[in-house]
Amino acid sequence: MRIKLTIQYDGADFCGFQTQPQKRTVQSELEAAIYKVTGTSSRVTASGRTDAGVHAIGQIAHFDTDKDLGEKYVGALNFYLPPDVRVTDAKTVDESFHARFSSKKKTYVYVMYESKTGNPLLGNRAVRVENKLNVKRMNEAAKLFLGKHDFAEFRSLGSDALTTKRTVFDANVKRKDGLVLFSVTADGFLYNMVRKMAAALIDVGNGRMSQEQISDLLSLKATFTKVAPAHGLYLYKVVY
Amino acid sequence: MRIKLTIQYDGADFCGFQTQPQKRTVQSELEAAIYKVTGTSSRVTASGRTDAGVHAIGQIAHFDTDKDLGEKYVGALNFYLPPDVRVTDAKTVDESFHARFSSKKKTYVYVMYESKTGNPLLGNRAVRVENKLNVKRMNEAAKLFLGKHDFAEFRSLGSDALTTKRTVFDANVKRKDGLVLFSVTADGFLYNMVRKMAAALIDVGNGRMSQEQISDLLSLKATFTKVAPAHGLYLYKVVY
Repeated sequence: MRIKLTIQYDGADFCGFQTQPQKRTVQSELEAAIYKVTGTSSRVTASGRTDAGVHAIGQIAHFDTDKDLGEKYVGALNFYLPPDVRVTDAKTVDESFHARFSSKKKTYVYVMYESKTGNPLLGNRAVRVENKLNVKRMNEAAKLFLGKHDFAEFRSLGSDALTTKRTVFDANVKRKDGLVLFSVTADGFLYNMVRKMAAALIDVGNGRMSQEQISDLLSLKATFTKVAPAHGLYLYKVVY
Repeated sequence: MRIKLTIQYDGADFCGFQTQPQKRTVQSELEAAIYKVTGTSSRVTASGRTDAGVHAIGQIAHFDTDKDLGEKYVGALNFYLPPDVRVTDAKTVDESFHARFSSKKKTYVYVMYESKTGNPLLGNRAVRVENKLNVKRMNEAAKLFLGKHDFAEFRSLGSDALTTKRTVFDANVKRKDGLVLFSVTADGFLYNMVRKMAAALIDVGNGRMSQEQISDLLSLKATFTKVAPAHGLYLYKVVY
C-alpha cells in the first residue's frame, strides 16, 4: 500500500532533498527511518526536489510498503528521524496517488528582512537585504507574474521540464513581524523559479528594476541571471 | 571613554555570555573583535550573564577604550564577529554608565510552541510542549508574579544575589503566530528565575499546577525544582 507523508525540514544542514552519494539529504534520512520501521527498503518520492538550504513546512512525499501503520507512521518515523526533519502527518492513500504527478498546485514563501547588521536569530532562515525595501512596488510587480506565462527567464538550467509555461494563481509581497514575505502559488515551478522571481522583486524593492523590466522578462525580451539565496525559500504547501 | 553596545545573539552554539577557559562564549567573541578593532585589550561588562543556549535580542554591554569610533563600532565589530553575534548599536556614553549597575529594568521573553512532532524550523529557538496549553490560565497565573515578592523559590543556586526580593512590573502570556509567549519585565532577575517561572506556567497550562500553588511558592510555603530549557529564553530589552 501507499503512504502519503507531510514533512517539515530545516534545509540548513542538508544537501537538498534528493539522495546523492555520500551526502546528507532529506530523502536518505527518510528512507533510513522507513527501513528501520518497516524492515524493508522503500523509495521515497517527493512532490519535487528542494535544493540545499531550502526549507519545507509542507513537503509531501509517498512510499510503498506492506506495513499498514497509517497515521502511526508519524510517531514511528519521528522516533528515528533527526530533529531537523519531522513527519507531521501520515495516511494510507490509494495507489493512484503520486506525490509529484498528482499535485495540482504548490505554494512557496520567500522570506527576507531588512538590516544593516544581520540578525543572528534569523541566520539560515531568512535572507538579509541591506536597505529598506519598497514593499508596495514589490507587491505590484509580483502581480505581473499572475496568469499563464513563459517563465523561461525565471529558471536556471538543470531541470528536465518539457515546457517553460506555468500558471501562477497567486503572488504577493507583504510585511509581517519585521519580515518581508513573498508568497507565490502556481501549478508548478521551474528550477530556481521562485528564487529568480525573488531576486527580481528585491531589485524592484531596491529601485534597481522597474515593472516594465519584469514584463520584458515575461515576454522574453530581456535576460536575467540573478538567483536569490536558497536559505530564504520555504516549500509551504502542496495541493492535490 | 566608555562605549555602550546593543548586542543580539543566537545562544545555541555558545557556552553562555561569560568568558570561561577553552569555551566559546559571547564575551570572548566580543573581546576578540574589540581587540582587532582597537589594538588593545578591553574587558566587556554586560547587563547580566546569560546561560548556554539563551538568546539575546537586546543585550547591553559596555567597555572602555581610547578609541572613540562612536557608532562606527557597529560596522567595525560586526566585520570581525561571527554571524551568530551582532552588534546592532554602539554609542559613546558617560563613564558613570554601567551596563549592569545602571539598569532599571529588564524584559525577558520565553517562547513555547505546542506540537506532537516537533518543528525543525523552530529547533533551538523555542521550547516544544506536547499538549495544548491553556493560555488564559497561564496568563492569569503570570499576573500573580506582579509586584514585589520574595522569589527565592524561583531561582537556582549559583547566583551571588544579596536579596531574593524582586519587583515584577509586567508579566503576561499570549499566543502569537502559532507560538506561546511569556513576557516578563522586572527590576532584576535571580539566577534561572524566568526559566523557573516558565516551568511553573507550563505546568499551569497543562493543568498540573494551580494558581494557589503559584501563590504558595511566592509566599515560600512550598518548594519548586523545575527549570524550563534554556533555548526558549530571550533577553529582550534592558532599560536604563
